[in-house]
Amino acid sequence: MGYKYNAANACDELRLPINNKKRIVIVGGGFAGLTLARKLAGEYYQVVLVDKNNFHQFQPLFYQVATSGLEPSAISFPFRKIFQEKNNIHFRMAEVLEVDSGKNELITSIGCIPYDYLILALGATTNYYNNAHIEKFSSPMKTVSEALQIRNLILQHYENAMNTNDDALATAFMNIVIVGGGPTGVELVGAIAEMKKFVLPKDYPELDFTSMKVILLEGSNRLLSAMSEKSSKKALEYLHNLGVDVRLNCQAKDFDGNLVTLSNNETIVSKTLVWAAGIKPNKIKGLSEEDYNNAGRILVNSQMQSINHQNIFALGDLALVNDNADYPNGHPQVAQVAIQQAKLVGNNFISMLINKKSKRFIYKDKGSMATVGRNLAVVELPHFKFSGFFAWFVWMFVHLFSIIGIKNKMLIFVNWAWNYLTYDQSLRLLIRNNTKENV
Amino acid sequence: MGYKYNAANACDELRLPINNKKRIVIVGGGFAGLTLARKLAGEYYQVVLVDKNNFHQFQPLFYQVATSGLEPSAISFPFRKIFQEKNNIHFRMAEVLEVDSGKNELITSIGCIPYDYLILALGATTNYYNNAHIEKFSSPMKTVSEALQIRNLILQHYENAMNTNDDALATAFMNIVIVGGGPTGVELVGAIAEMKKFVLPKDYPELDFTSMKVILLEGSNRLLSAMSEKSSKKALEYLHNLGVDVRLNCQAKDFDGNLVTLSNNETIVSKTLVWAAGIKPNKIKGLSEEDYNNAGRILVNSQMQSINHQNIFALGDLALVNDNADYPNGHPQVAQVAIQQAKLVGNNFISMLINKKSKRFIYKDKGSMATVGRNLAVVELPHFKFSGFFAWFVWMFVHLFSIIGIKNKMLIFVNWAWNYLTYDQSLRLLIRNNTKENV
Repeated sequence: MGYKYNAANACDELRLPINNKKRIVIVGGGFAGLTLARKLAGEYYQVVLVDKNNFHQFQPLFYQVATSGLEPSAISFPFRKIFQEKNNIHFRMAEVLEVDSGKNELITSIGCIPYDYLILALGATTNYYNNAHIEKFSSPMKTVSEALQIRNLILQHYENAMNTNDDALATAFMNIVIVGGGPTGVELVGAIAEMKKFVLPKDYPELDFTSMKVILLEGSNRLLSAMSEKSSKKALEYLHNLGVDVRLNCQAKDFDGNLVTLSNNETIVSKTLVWAAGIKPNKIKGLSEEDYNNAGRILVNSQMQSINHQNIFALGDLALVNDNADYPNGHPQVAQVAIQQAKLVGNNFISMLINKKSKRFIYKDKGSMATVGRNLAVVELPHFKFSGFFAWFVWMFVHLFSIIGIKNKMLIFVNWAWNYLTYDQSLRLLIRNNTKENV
Repeated sequence: MGYKYNAANACDELRLPINNKKRIVIVGGGFAGLTLARKLAGEYYQVVLVDKNNFHQFQPLFYQVATSGLEPSAISFPFRKIFQEKNNIHFRMAEVLEVDSGKNELITSIGCIPYDYLILALGATTNYYNNAHIEKFSSPMKTVSEALQIRNLILQHYENAMNTNDDALATAFMNIVIVGGGPTGVELVGAIAEMKKFVLPKDYPELDFTSMKVILLEGSNRLLSAMSEKSSKKALEYLHNLGVDVRLNCQAKDFDGNLVTLSNNETIVSKTLVWAAGIKPNKIKGLSEEDYNNAGRILVNSQMQSINHQNIFALGDLALVNDNADYPNGHPQVAQVAIQQAKLVGNNFISMLINKKSKRFIYKDKGSMATVGRNLAVVELPHFKFSGFFAWFVWMFVHLFSIIGIKNKMLIFVNWAWNYLTYDQSLRLLIRNNTKENV
């Protein structure tokens, strides 16, 4: 259903009811877009939520999909189900092509959607910092589908390692290098180290796991740099105990699919390189250069309103509040900021209906956390920092609580309880999306 | 890791331990291959199980994957997990290319595997009866991956229906035609009719479901022709009550992706045609024409031994016992036959170790069953036929019991209990296997 934009079918109403409500078009159903749409459910607006997938993805648990701990479905939520019986919320699955801010129209793969207000909440994507080799050969983990591909890649590499008598080649298939010591990299490498310890040797008894390396590269001098020094040290200690080779002040400068070259010119033989070292905002065609800062984030005022377009708003990872002295480089690109911004904008839209004054965005840091393998985590609340088993318990509880839907909570709970009791993720399936398989 | 067969790397031992056990190579890990490998675990044989997937697929529940009721992982079981700590069973993920019965070698995509005994348990694939159009445009459901593709296709078609004001086109996207009134077609169409009733109108409130047709085509004069006339009538009655348009004595003779042409030259506008109307045995290169009957099944004696090759056996859908007067056209191509044949052959291999006489295959029909939508099923046990709610309960219990692994039983139970209580399957995710998504 490729859509070719032309004047004739422009502004086709796409089965949207015609009424005198103002239409708010939200682009992107991540934490920001989803929160805003839920906030506006039942309010006197027509809300059109546009996403290229028909489901919301719960990013904090991607690493568990990548390491066979959870199924994609456990952490993905169909928008249509979330908005069943919310009659003013209309979901449309589409790719966004362009915004025409002059005509107030959003051009998408399924047609043109006129808007009264446009909310840009497209989030961020992997940033390879213009390293073409790394972009070509490494594995990103910014979508649930990419997380699933990492799972498939690792499983395929282990099958390949079984099929060669060349031990050096087998080791190349077995080694895993993760780039980026933020929460994503730390949580992923912890889970992989546990697979090495508890799962893989049982699945592949013919392979020699003493030679398998699990390596984490971090460019700065500590892990989890958004957290305290103490938490960084704890995370490092936990990863060491799990057998992870953590290299600080070290970057990957090249990767050809077989060999990782480090910033100090050392090389590591590995066919698996996961790139979790940076993000950049998703771009949308149609806005001008003055709408962005030089990192590609959309400049907004403290009501999250584009500085150049009164009826365009930006939320979350791609927004930058340009008049906040506390965060001169923008707020952290984390879920909490996106959710709080969406709630603010939702409340301001509701205020507008009753002529109340709109409010400014003030970020309340509710803390941050990361889990480092089984039973261990670091947690920082505003007045309380702790680590270890209790932190891990808090981490699990907070994530289970954040998951949408009772059934998903139950399924995840069964999975986690099972993994906890058996030390065994059991989802090691290499399901491919072939068409028309015959044999 | 494409493998090019050449003399130099032929018979590479693929990390298989060298010992004086006889090597049994099993091709295919369906019901037959899996049962045989489990039977031989711990016995004095070296068993190599070869499958192109790294997991066993539980076919009877494919229709629930296709209709968003279960995740693929719930009904797929990694071979390596099943055979953990079974030291004499070696799983290898590979495509089979050819058998060289002269040299006793199996040529595969990962290398050549010499065998003492070869077990062919490759099962069957979809038979389009040489109808190239139907092969090109219809959707088969013989693998879990194909079941997932049907799910994705249906979801995508509903999204497409939302994106057009042309009601005729929307109806074409909404209509679903299933060909084949065996258990697969009946169970699938029942589940789709329930989606129409309970799920889709809530997900797509803007669409008119009164015009949506769910059609089942069956070439003979009754459904479930392997069961009794009474069960056929019950199944027909249940499907009628669910609103399915069942057409008996009716075949699909053409399909171009938009229009189904029936054997009576009538046409049905539909973009979704699921083909569950026939199977044919998977073929393996290297055997000669005399090894097969004219339907492509491998001719075996009552010990499941190829009539022309003493050390080659065939099991399940692709085997035909040629000296059984009770089944002149072969045994039914169902799981029970495959499982019983595998057990027999397993026992005969064990008998061989202790010089006991091997036994002949005698099929014990344990009955058959099919579910027709929520709460209803038909069940035929050897001395007892029944239908309705209790039959459905038996159907569920038997399937839950047959599923491998406690965790999968739990997950499926949670899913089924949830679907039962809420009338809502919640896995309506269109997860694509894209590489390197950027926006």
